[in-house]
Amino acid sequence: MHNTFKTELIKKHSCLPARVTKITTPHGEIQTPAFMPVATRAFVNMMTPADLVGTGSQIILGGNTYHMLCAPGMELIQDVGGMHRFMSWDKPMLTDSGGFQIFSLSKNGNICKIDEKGGHFKHPISGKVIHLTPETSINAQKIIGADIIMAFDECTPEAGGRDAALAALNRTHRWLNESIEIHEKNPHSAYGFKQALFGIIQGGSFLDLREQSTRFILEAKLDGIAIGGEVIGFDMQKTAEVIDWIQPMLPENKTRYTMGVGLNPQDLIDVVARGIDIFDCVAPTRNARHGTLYCGAVVKKDNWLTFTGNEPQNKILIKKAIFAKDERPLMEDCKCFTCKNFTRAYLHYLFKQQAMLYFNLACIHNIHVMQYVCEEMRKLILGNS
Amino acid sequence: MHNTFKTELIKKHSCLPARVTKITTPHGEIQTPAFMPVATRAFVNMMTPADLVGTGSQIILGGNTYHMLCAPGMELIQDVGGMHRFMSWDKPMLTDSGGFQIFSLSKNGNICKIDEKGGHFKHPISGKVIHLTPETSINAQKIIGADIIMAFDECTPEAGGRDAALAALNRTHRWLNESIEIHEKNPHSAYGFKQALFGIIQGGSFLDLREQSTRFILEAKLDGIAIGGEVIGFDMQKTAEVIDWIQPMLPENKTRYTMGVGLNPQDLIDVVARGIDIFDCVAPTRNARHGTLYCGAVVKKDNWLTFTGNEPQNKILIKKAIFAKDERPLMEDCKCFTCKNFTRAYLHYLFKQQAMLYFNLACIHNIHVMQYVCEEMRKLILGNS
Repeated sequence: MHNTFKTELIKKHSCLPARVTKITTPHGEIQTPAFMPVATRAFVNMMTPADLVGTGSQIILGGNTYHMLCAPGMELIQDVGGMHRFMSWDKPMLTDSGGFQIFSLSKNGNICKIDEKGGHFKHPISGKVIHLTPETSINAQKIIGADIIMAFDECTPEAGGRDAALAALNRTHRWLNESIEIHEKNPHSAYGFKQALFGIIQGGSFLDLREQSTRFILEAKLDGIAIGGEVIGFDMQKTAEVIDWIQPMLPENKTRYTMGVGLNPQDLIDVVARGIDIFDCVAPTRNARHGTLYCGAVVKKDNWLTFTGNEPQNKILIKKAIFAKDERPLMEDCKCFTCKNFTRAYLHYLFKQQAMLYFNLACIHNIHVMQYVCEEMRKLILGNS
Repeated sequence: MHNTFKTELIKKHSCLPARVTKITTPHGEIQTPAFMPVATRAFVNMMTPADLVGTGSQIILGGNTYHMLCAPGMELIQDVGGMHRFMSWDKPMLTDSGGFQIFSLSKNGNICKIDEKGGHFKHPISGKVIHLTPETSINAQKIIGADIIMAFDECTPEAGGRDAALAALNRTHRWLNESIEIHEKNPHSAYGFKQALFGIIQGGSFLDLREQSTRFILEAKLDGIAIGGEVIGFDMQKTAEVIDWIQPMLPENKTRYTMGVGLNPQDLIDVVARGIDIFDCVAPTRNARHGTLYCGAVVKKDNWLTFTGNEPQNKILIKKAIFAKDERPLMEDCKCFTCKNFTRAYLHYLFKQQAMLYFNLACIHNIHVMQYVCEEMRKLILGNS
């Protein structure tokens, strides 16, 4: 018997909107704030499920709808019993609706065209044609079988100005109603448990549009509320403005999710301070692959926290010659597998040798830092720090 | 206080030269037969030390002398306290003298030239010049700090016929005496513990030369005896002939090591049947990277064992379309991390996606199969199977 999805407020910060919540999902509980590593193509580059658990990850963003439709396809995923079994991940999972791919791939009109019905993709290599609509997206997410699925949306481009933001907002709202209609016919995954559906607030960096979108999403009484759009996570000042504006409208018993936040550890601290619970970003693993490793410590500042240290921008570029003989771990007092076992000198050497082992150790460290930051925030809010 | 190296015979097979021994080293004990994964460049591609322990690996071949002289260099290795600490591997380790690189790189005269003193390398990228002699090799191995170091030898090329085999043999013998002289001045590593020195029998596929070389090596009363040359591990029929010829001369209380054996699981069974204890080969990880995964089971046959199954050559080529929907583990009843968690379908998908995670999971499986074969041999010899 699977648990029913719910969000409970555990404790609020004494003077900030920051909070600790407990989310119950069919695949177990999460304590927030929680960072979600991203397995867009049904794997987190380059970590095993055991590695992910070792970093303190409680939930992942698994198998994006668009990518899963491309490969391996819904038939296989359904045959093996869903994404949890395919990836061998038995903890909570969220998946995305493919709305972000409409945004990123429609920049190339040969790959994706958008109309009022949805996004129409032609896969650049296989030539496979995929029509992503509220109906196909929700149905695919039922086969993926994540605990949390996302309404089909159009991610708001920043370059388009107010007109584009308004158009994306109206489409997103209409697609939300269609997504709900499909979901309510059968709110269960293809494997029997009830899935939570989150709606996505759009509106770009226009606060009146964000407010309008928030009201629309809240009326739908969904299980959780996401804040989307190109600006979120990319421009942290505007991200903060948007969250500050809509946060007072958000009910306490709904999970709040900023999509694509987490370029840097500090970004998590900045959105949690404003009342956000969960977030995902490919940056920690992408940075790791390119040799950029987080380095700092969470320290108390004015009743809240900051991620700071001695390295420029709290990052190490491991390829630099100064690390060739550096026998310290990547980050002082870091409890990750990498820092407990290896020196900067070894990681520098592995990077220079283009050893695949480097990528594993580097990703483990960067994801661990994100979870360490979340843990320190939970501790402070709960009064255990 | 570190243990002193010794080899103890635990049990012999009732009718074959196959045996179980216990090797005590400064970094712990090994029960043989034991396969050594190869970390030529100070990492096993693509496995963490924890992954290696998880496969049942008891000892690795760590950081080849030639490669370590190229990068990261002896100064760094000494500064960090040796290869065990650099790689974060705290169990037994053997390193090689660089003799094999003289063989493989001298095929290109621009990279390596051989004379009576040793091999003279010019690194193809860095241009760094390295003179590898018995003295520089043994001294480098003291800085690497393996538990078992190898006398400097010339690996016998097969194409050269008897003249080349005799020349390599004579050089190897003279270099052995020089290696011993350096080693005996101070038989300790740069970190204080006493290292075991193994000699290498050459002679190609000429049984009289192998016999001559065996007598020479045995007279030196070293800690262990290796059987080297291009033919070993490459041509398993000739490998068997060579071992069968010299095995009756070998004392019971010395470790016996065939260098480069282990292209396939069956190869381990074939040399252990003839009285060999340890072996190394890059093939399991190289095969894994290229999509070739071992698949079979160890079964009893005529009071001994064989590795056999339903797949052609007891291997799976994971890229094949037939595995796209195959929900079985790679190998039935396999206890490895990969088989306990993932299907052939998922590994096929990861391979097609060129996901780095594939390489980790594939290497874990292939190395585990080698150790599983060793474990089954130990069980049979000990009467526990």
